[in-house]
Amino acid sequence: MEQEHIVKSFDEDLNNIENLIIEMGGLVEKQISDAATALTRRDVELADAVIAADKRIDSLEAEIDVAVVHILAKRQPMAQDLRAVVVAPKIGSNLERIGDYSKNIAKRTSVLAKAQRIGSATSTIQRMCEMVQHMVKDVLDAYVSRNQEQASDVRLRDEDVDQMHNTLFRELLTYMMEDPRAITPCMHLLFIAKNVERMGDHTTSIAEQVHYMVSGEIFDEERPKSDATSTTFIEPDAAE
Amino acid sequence: MEQEHIVKSFDEDLNNIENLIIEMGGLVEKQISDAATALTRRDVELADAVIAADKRIDSLEAEIDVAVVHILAKRQPMAQDLRAVVVAPKIGSNLERIGDYSKNIAKRTSVLAKAQRIGSATSTIQRMCEMVQHMVKDVLDAYVSRNQEQASDVRLRDEDVDQMHNTLFRELLTYMMEDPRAITPCMHLLFIAKNVERMGDHTTSIAEQVHYMVSGEIFDEERPKSDATSTTFIEPDAAE
Repeated sequence: MEQEHIVKSFDEDLNNIENLIIEMGGLVEKQISDAATALTRRDVELADAVIAADKRIDSLEAEIDVAVVHILAKRQPMAQDLRAVVVAPKIGSNLERIGDYSKNIAKRTSVLAKAQRIGSATSTIQRMCEMVQHMVKDVLDAYVSRNQEQASDVRLRDEDVDQMHNTLFRELLTYMMEDPRAITPCMHLLFIAKNVERMGDHTTSIAEQVHYMVSGEIFDEERPKSDATSTTFIEPDAAE
Repeated sequence: MEQEHIVKSFDEDLNNIENLIIEMGGLVEKQISDAATALTRRDVELADAVIAADKRIDSLEAEIDVAVVHILAKRQPMAQDLRAVVVAPKIGSNLERIGDYSKNIAKRTSVLAKAQRIGSATSTIQRMCEMVQHMVKDVLDAYVSRNQEQASDVRLRDEDVDQMHNTLFRELLTYMMEDPRAITPCMHLLFIAKNVERMGDHTTSIAEQVHYMVSGEIFDEERPKSDATSTTFIEPDAAE
């Protein structure tokens, strides 16, 4: 009886952590979507709301960390239970970073709203954000349902985000070469595109945590990384 | 006697984790320094060595995570001991990110080595890297000696890195406006400068972990953030 009571309480504690992660994930999804909408519509008010909403995400991360220390101090979880506890702060930290990148996009939106529009860059960024937002949704579904296959699938989808980033990167560089007035806005768009690419990386990192939680094995294959922007070189002639 | 044996073994396990973090920190310091030297001297061979050396840092992070799960499964650490265990994966993850940023600088070095030199940008980046490298060294000293004051000090020094980043950012934008051939190299230098600024952030995050480990309190004051580049707008006229 006593034993059963302890077991039940552990599950409650673990559920609490899981709920915090789900709440955090829901907010982060909304932040990605709102940041992208604010950017596309030049909606500075919505961008400010994204900046303000980041605080709640930060405090959820802290709540997860506290709950993890609490559960470890009170119980001695083993095997998959222990793994479910130790991945929680990592997933929390990845979600916090994705939230932070959304906030950064929102910060740059107020500057971009005053500048000339750069081709279809913001639509491309919006599409990249939608892809990442769905990846976040799916990886959290995989986390809740302990679905390793779904987690692997999310991990592979990051390549599409990288490819879009590569294309947009080259496009923005050529715009900069064509018109000096495009330099400041393009530069902010380059950083935003990089932020979205990084969001994708953090989502795949959550997928790897889910894989570890379910299987007990650390993902050791190299992730298919297709971000080629670090070594891209474009000459002004190419812009002609 | 048996009790003493258990206590001693826990200390050994914890020492093992601490040693992994120290080893990782030493390698990361070297990576920052080598990445900066490679960039300044246009030494592509050294840059390639930095890229190759990142693997060892990644596997040290994985080793720390495994050791943490192991110690939690075997023992039931309490209070400061438990905190020392739970901060380890976070510190490991911060160090891994700093290592990753060094690798990214090294990747861009092979491109920059072929391009025109941009003013004194690489010297400024080298100075920023030296500051961050010393911060990493000091925060790991604070970690080993459980010195809260030293950790706080490191956290505050990040403001200087941010200030240098702001200045360099404006400088690079004006170079881009003056000469389209400077756009690609300046863009890589902007991303490198941002990487170094982020390294500083991760170092302050380690400082916050040390603070928590020693005191049991989470740092809740906002960090003095002085990175103003997200909202910087420069018109081509300003470049004249």
